[in-house]
Amino acid sequence: MDYPNGQEPGAPIRSGIPEHGRIPKYYAAKVRIEALLAELGEGEALPTERDLALRFEVSRETLRLALRELHLEGRLRRLGRGTVVASPKLEQPLSLASYTEGVRKQGRRPGRHLVGLDRFPAQPRLAGELGLQVGDEVWHLERVLLADEERVGLESTYVAVARVPHLDTEFEPDSSFYAYLHEHLGIGFGNADERLETVLATPREALLIGTPGALPMLLIHRLSRDTRGVPLERVRSLYRGDRFSFTTHLGD
Amino acid sequence: MDYPNGQEPGAPIRSGIPEHGRIPKYYAAKVRIEALLAELGEGEALPTERDLALRFEVSRETLRLALRELHLEGRLRRLGRGTVVASPKLEQPLSLASYTEGVRKQGRRPGRHLVGLDRFPAQPRLAGELGLQVGDEVWHLERVLLADEERVGLESTYVAVARVPHLDTEFEPDSSFYAYLHEHLGIGFGNADERLETVLATPREALLIGTPGALPMLLIHRLSRDTRGVPLERVRSLYRGDRFSFTTHLGD
Repeated sequence: MDYPNGQEPGAPIRSGIPEHGRIPKYYAAKVRIEALLAELGEGEALPTERDLALRFEVSRETLRLALRELHLEGRLRRLGRGTVVASPKLEQPLSLASYTEGVRKQGRRPGRHLVGLDRFPAQPRLAGELGLQVGDEVWHLERVLLADEERVGLESTYVAVARVPHLDTEFEPDSSFYAYLHEHLGIGFGNADERLETVLATPREALLIGTPGALPMLLIHRLSRDTRGVPLERVRSLYRGDRFSFTTHLGD
Repeated sequence: MDYPNGQEPGAPIRSGIPEHGRIPKYYAAKVRIEALLAELGEGEALPTERDLALRFEVSRETLRLALRELHLEGRLRRLGRGTVVASPKLEQPLSLASYTEGVRKQGRRPGRHLVGLDRFPAQPRLAGELGLQVGDEVWHLERVLLADEERVGLESTYVAVARVPHLDTEFEPDSSFYAYLHEHLGIGFGNADERLETVLATPREALLIGTPGALPMLLIHRLSRDTRGVPLERVRSLYRGDRFSFTTHLGD
């Protein structure tokens, strides 16, 4: 039997050890740190780099490679001057409902900080997607997404000015755009197409979200239509890959 | 107007330049290489590192940082001893249908290479998910996923031996498991829950898929049920983040 006793169904098989049996040193350290994290539990402080290097008999450099991967994967989190065991990734449903609703369902407090609200004439591709003429005016609303005051993502919404003429004066940018559409304009969502990929944060995005540069992110491209099937908004949502996962239910 | 004329709706705003206006050198080089890739077009060879460094007046080290990100994001691909402009990411639908079907729809030739087929007693968590008793025997089928002969992912399927007793003798591991279930056993899929996240490839996974280590990957955890709602399989599918995106349609 090749399977270690404690194997979890979602865990990498054989703890990521290549068939030829050569385990990179940093990876062996990472596996041992992961076991330590499970012992410690969520929110508990990790020993210092110095202590860990001594304990696992690796160089500081090797140890840092292991810690860097654990940070990128969201297993560790910086807190003040130390490092603690991170809580599990948020599980956000892929749904027509808003970010706000998804985060609230997980018992977290959603929030949004305005980066900017501008209007500009639609270029051909955006005009095509939103069913507009080239040059028709479009709002661009850009906001940082928060969960329990932590910055977790960045969202750009493009919507025709003709559909939402008073967005700049009526809309409270810290609130839910979907609630605004529904309550002020009676607009509901009918359907949406989404495409999800992993990308690296650009320097500007990393700065706005407060992540290290080049952190793997989850990017969702969305085109939503209203209940009559008319294109309504084009959204680009970027979520921290170390803090988010997305769930969906398929079939009946 | 803050928007460059050529801005695409799905592109990062202001080309990723932070508000304070300081653009990291590698990022400025990356933006210029991206423009060059668009000019060259899919499949065309990139100039040498030496030529690019001269052309953009950056050090080889800075250039390599830019090229590394473009590789991780799937914009560049190694071919023989050179580097070419990569084709766009595959757009795989999140659906009950098999990998095979999704890839075929995109005009690519799907394939699978067997890594291993083993049976082992279910641990508590897997038993719980599959509705089995702890210790009931479970198959673990592990396969590398191919598209047009290129290795693009790694899939682990866990299914009760009692449900599929002759998997080791009847099933052709290069073929579709879903087609086998349907044709040999009359088993169809009713629904599935999926969870999608980004992770870094482990050394073993990187070796099997043939990627650089620590490439950002898309990982899908899946629990499928048959048409009667009985849990059928637990799947862990790992896809190259530089080669795949996933699409879904929400609502009506």
